[in-house]
Amino acid sequence: LTAPEAAPSDRRVSDLGRRVLTALVALPLLLAALLLGPPLLAGVLAALALLIALFEYFHLIEARGLKPFRLEGLALTVLLAIEPCRPGWAGPPLWPFAVLLLLGSLLLRRGELGAAVDSAAATLLGAIYLGVLGGCLAGLRLVDPSAGPWRLLLLLAIVMAADTAAYFVGRAFGNRPLAPRLSPKKTVEGALGGILGGVVGAVVVAAWRLESLPLLHAAALGAVVALFALLGDLFESLLKRWAGVKDSGTLFPGHGGMLDRLDSLLFGAPLLYYYFCWIR
Amino acid sequence: LTAPEAAPSDRRVSDLGRRVLTALVALPLLLAALLLGPPLLAGVLAALALLIALFEYFHLIEARGLKPFRLEGLALTVLLAIEPCRPGWAGPPLWPFAVLLLLGSLLLRRGELGAAVDSAAATLLGAIYLGVLGGCLAGLRLVDPSAGPWRLLLLLAIVMAADTAAYFVGRAFGNRPLAPRLSPKKTVEGALGGILGGVVGAVVVAAWRLESLPLLHAAALGAVVALFALLGDLFESLLKRWAGVKDSGTLFPGHGGMLDRLDSLLFGAPLLYYYFCWIR
Repeated sequence: LTAPEAAPSDRRVSDLGRRVLTALVALPLLLAALLLGPPLLAGVLAALALLIALFEYFHLIEARGLKPFRLEGLALTVLLAIEPCRPGWAGPPLWPFAVLLLLGSLLLRRGELGAAVDSAAATLLGAIYLGVLGGCLAGLRLVDPSAGPWRLLLLLAIVMAADTAAYFVGRAFGNRPLAPRLSPKKTVEGALGGILGGVVGAVVVAAWRLESLPLLHAAALGAVVALFALLGDLFESLLKRWAGVKDSGTLFPGHGGMLDRLDSLLFGAPLLYYYFCWIR
Repeated sequence: LTAPEAAPSDRRVSDLGRRVLTALVALPLLLAALLLGPPLLAGVLAALALLIALFEYFHLIEARGLKPFRLEGLALTVLLAIEPCRPGWAGPPLWPFAVLLLLGSLLLRRGELGAAVDSAAATLLGAIYLGVLGGCLAGLRLVDPSAGPWRLLLLLAIVMAADTAAYFVGRAFGNRPLAPRLSPKKTVEGALGGILGGVVGAVVVAAWRLESLPLLHAAALGAVVALFALLGDLFESLLKRWAGVKDSGTLFPGHGGMLDRLDSLLFGAPLLYYYFCWIR
């Protein structure tokens, strides 16, 4: 979640306008479905989002000059993502079979052998990235059906508050570049503002709806999740540099593709997921 | 597990001699430790074997011209391998943190961005290969402390009987090349002999020590595990072609490296592991 990178400054206002417009239409609908709808609907929406993100990632693999293992990568992503959503984690996981399927399929791939292994490794990277981290994102909502909506809201609030704060603090005070090779417009000042924004977002949601979450814990989670959300954003920028493309997709006008929307959530989700598994 | 590939025929007898000599010394000791020793000893040996194999794999990554993420790959392999060995599979797995660590470290890697992602993907491939499949191998021995030794013996017997049968049937009747690009000396006839050998090995162990395993099941497991052992052997050949090296290491005189020793066991282990989880 970030402002579009390297947009010419004369387009900034219209980009912001399109972003706001899309957000005003899509966001309330999505939030209502995820938070007020039944777990099944949230699960279906999560599966759909991960599926779109996976196929965007397959396009990145192709842009890198490799050939994704689509079916095997899909199977692995789905079986990985199911794990954190299984209540009680009963029985051994199924995804090792998808690993065997992927490694076995590699033997049947025609063409240059070296490129085939590179393609399998790249497929694995995406399946792990989206399956494991995306599974934690879905599990955050689904494992505890009654608290799930507010846990997910906590993540969304941290990431959106951090994103917004980083944008405005960065515009107002941004001076030192944070990661110029990956994301030239990000600044250290913006990142610090984002972490502060994450703290505020977490405390507000905790005070409003998660009474069992101490405010000090909420503040700490807000800071750490905001930091990881930033890393997730940079990681996705890195994937795009790797593939040599600007946007992962064009699903949402002014917001880039699904991967661009999920990147911060994916890195933040495991932290909250494990916090609620172990501590609360 | 296979005869060294493309050895000049005048060296074949001496190679076979060295193989037999090493096997006569190392194999009885290893079998005694794994089957008669305490689970802890088997666990330590398994951890040691996977560690050596992982560092051989890191050498393959370097031979490919990439830079492995050693520490992160090691953490991921260990945490993945623990999973199938945890009795009752209590609680959520820890390895997603190692995934976050690897993906996060990627952001700190200096040098060319594209090569860094390729290196992370290659590290992930090895950690998954050795962690997931190696975890099943260790779990086969460790999950049920009383039946474990005989389940492991079942796997070893299938793989060794298949290997031996493939070698001699291939030498006597081998005609049609099986996978000339990967392993020029393997033949279709040898592979069929290997599957038959696997059936015999499985039935013998089942009749001797695994009374609860019906002989028909044992025969079917022998055939399927022998087939996957062959795929595992070919997969490791593919990794070596990818890296452009002949042997993964020189740990055992005449037997190649640890990866060369484990490759068949790694692909066969999940099948037996899940069979004993679900069916027996």
